[in-house]
Amino acid sequence: MRHILIIGAGRSSSSLIKYLLDHAEKDDFTITVADLSLEAAQKRTAHHPRATPLAFDINNDQQRLGEIEKATVVISMLPAAMHLIVAKDCISLKKHLVTASYISEELKALNDEVTAANLVFMNEIGLDPGIDHMSAMKVLDRIREQGHKVVLFESFCGGLVAPENDDNLWNYKFTWNPRNVVLAGQGGAAKFIQEGTYKYIPYHRVFRRTEFLEIESYGKFEVYANRDSLKYRSIYKLDDILTLYRGTIRRVGYSRAWDMFVQLGLTDDSYILDDSHLMSNREFINLFLPYHPTDSVEIKLRHQLKIDQDDIIWEKLLELDLFNPNVVMGVKHATPAQMLEAILAAKWQLKPEDKDMIVMYHKIGYQDGDSFKQIDATMVCLGENQTYTAMARTVGLPVGIAALKILNKVITKPGVQLPIEKEIYDPILEELEKHGIVFHEHEVPYEGYN
Amino acid sequence: MRHILIIGAGRSSSSLIKYLLDHAEKDDFTITVADLSLEAAQKRTAHHPRATPLAFDINNDQQRLGEIEKATVVISMLPAAMHLIVAKDCISLKKHLVTASYISEELKALNDEVTAANLVFMNEIGLDPGIDHMSAMKVLDRIREQGHKVVLFESFCGGLVAPENDDNLWNYKFTWNPRNVVLAGQGGAAKFIQEGTYKYIPYHRVFRRTEFLEIESYGKFEVYANRDSLKYRSIYKLDDILTLYRGTIRRVGYSRAWDMFVQLGLTDDSYILDDSHLMSNREFINLFLPYHPTDSVEIKLRHQLKIDQDDIIWEKLLELDLFNPNVVMGVKHATPAQMLEAILAAKWQLKPEDKDMIVMYHKIGYQDGDSFKQIDATMVCLGENQTYTAMARTVGLPVGIAALKILNKVITKPGVQLPIEKEIYDPILEELEKHGIVFHEHEVPYEGYN
Repeated sequence: MRHILIIGAGRSSSSLIKYLLDHAEKDDFTITVADLSLEAAQKRTAHHPRATPLAFDINNDQQRLGEIEKATVVISMLPAAMHLIVAKDCISLKKHLVTASYISEELKALNDEVTAANLVFMNEIGLDPGIDHMSAMKVLDRIREQGHKVVLFESFCGGLVAPENDDNLWNYKFTWNPRNVVLAGQGGAAKFIQEGTYKYIPYHRVFRRTEFLEIESYGKFEVYANRDSLKYRSIYKLDDILTLYRGTIRRVGYSRAWDMFVQLGLTDDSYILDDSHLMSNREFINLFLPYHPTDSVEIKLRHQLKIDQDDIIWEKLLELDLFNPNVVMGVKHATPAQMLEAILAAKWQLKPEDKDMIVMYHKIGYQDGDSFKQIDATMVCLGENQTYTAMARTVGLPVGIAALKILNKVITKPGVQLPIEKEIYDPILEELEKHGIVFHEHEVPYEGYN
Repeated sequence: MRHILIIGAGRSSSSLIKYLLDHAEKDDFTITVADLSLEAAQKRTAHHPRATPLAFDINNDQQRLGEIEKATVVISMLPAAMHLIVAKDCISLKKHLVTASYISEELKALNDEVTAANLVFMNEIGLDPGIDHMSAMKVLDRIREQGHKVVLFESFCGGLVAPENDDNLWNYKFTWNPRNVVLAGQGGAAKFIQEGTYKYIPYHRVFRRTEFLEIESYGKFEVYANRDSLKYRSIYKLDDILTLYRGTIRRVGYSRAWDMFVQLGLTDDSYILDDSHLMSNREFINLFLPYHPTDSVEIKLRHQLKIDQDDIIWEKLLELDLFNPNVVMGVKHATPAQMLEAILAAKWQLKPEDKDMIVMYHKIGYQDGDSFKQIDATMVCLGENQTYTAMARTVGLPVGIAALKILNKVITKPGVQLPIEKEIYDPILEELEKHGIVFHEHEVPYEGYN
């Protein structure tokens, strides 16, 4: 009997497991869903006759080896740092492996062994990384096959709240790990290429150097630069490209307002605040403003950041209860960033009926003879509910599709890899389209800088 | 024969060695000046009959032990990280030790051994740390002896160019390590206390939250916050103080102009620029500005930083040749901060006839019954020339004075220590006054915030 082992039944596994269960009968295989929490696993398998839920401890060698032994394909939805132990077992027991995580140096080092054992270790096959690779490579490869030269590649992605539930002034709610949102952009200057020269934006300027995007029937968005725009330069074969830029998508106005937090120092995660658990929101904000015996926290902040009386960003601060002397978050030993995260989480949580939205946008410019042309490819995916969120669908479906195609020997090329080859991305993108994850391409006037 | 060994004959040793040589006859002792470079040591000893220059390798155990063995007091002017090896020898050979550096954890851990051996290990006895400790403790102790409660302590220090040689728009030249100037304020938020509450300033705001100082016959200065304002809270016995703030002194307008570098990202030391040695000043600046096919680097920078046509900070940039396409610094594998340092060093170097200036300013507020009072203590020291600079005098003289007083058994209390006790700071400050390093005290209206 063909068998798939899924390790990890967290938020991002819902659509993945549903996809596999929907195909288990027809494609004739069984699955085990293994998680530290039996309850979490049971919730995902829902008494499906072809599925077994399992209480599973990754550090229990005997159990781990036993379960991997039974599988044909193993899917690891564990935190990235824990894939390696599974990967090593998969080599010794000759099993295929699928993960949605970045390929670590340690995993990469196993490539020769994996290839020799004729195994497929498919990684970076979630949303970002994952769908971004596949959808970009599809357009890039086609342009190159036509004999044209790619000169510009810009790629953007964002997780947002669906338009119908977009009801706060920030046009934003947390649909994924809030900590990553608070720390976004930190750890070094954003680096990218514009018209053949490197460009750098320091952290405290990232949210002020945004640009706009528009997607038909979804309106305007904005993007701020990611730190890692050059990461895939070689992998995408863009070593000679003139413009290479990656960014994060938000609704218009978010970044300018977020920049207030950056300027004040609220996103700093490098030191602990004394007595943070006793501190009101108002006291927290006042830490970052000069002392004055009578001036209010409000006027001091307005003055420091030069916020006009009628500027909407002020209302955004009020909406967060930032000046409230009676609201105490109660987070012990918190950094400023952790305090801010708590304040935002109280306001930006999805309501039970709220749906999320994933937006992806590629701009690909190329030279066709003497003329410059551009193709924009856009994808919007809406969540169905709080289980089958857009995030879970876009992360989980490509994982499930890849696992099934490996099981069915459609994907057979061995090695530690990511989905950048036509034989892999074409069938997966086709299957994703059937599930409503569709890229729309538009020819647009070349937007490059020459 | 009583003997002092001085290890290190660099810039900061000139006044120290001169001071000791001037006293060698009368106080009847000899000195050895030991340096990696025999030439440097010879320059300092200048054929003085009581001095021996020596080519010295700190890692040569036999030589090091031999020289320390001959001494009564050892002065280490080595980089701070190298004191420990000398300190351990001083314990085993029973010699006193003097350094101008911060007491490291490793050195502190030797306190019991040092005390048991009845040795004086005097540290932090240069300018800052050093003169700042002594001059502050003198006022603090006196106020407390009078039964008053200290409520405010602000302390500022800066190395500047002497007024007569202050001939650039920045009113600044490098009088010490340029790298420290470029990286000033980095590594975490500036932390201080105002009226009983902590205050934090993130790096990218430090140079915009300055305050002014005035010193009679020297005019106005400004200060920006140091990162470490709370460092000496307990050592100075200021645990309950309401306001505690330390800062760096510059001429008015420096910080606002320096902030342009911070905002652009030019002070970042965390990544290497490709082909930095081929880059003109203009190309360097353009890295931090958006691409445009026709707009000039000048207009892009003006626009990004919102610099008005008639703002003097613009002239400060021009003075540095920042937009020159023909000036190439040629620094290989440089970070942005290293590129900036090279550009500034070319413009801010002291000319051979230029003199430097050290400014120190303490504000000490206290409660006398129901009334609040304040004493300001200020010190200005001018360099004599490029050998006996204000920096060398203020760092070296207290070291020399302390060493001589230890030799003469005026300072005898054993242990690893810094100069915060009356028996130590009083005679040293008195001797410093004889050499023109004088604090002027003024009673001023209390400037606190209540």
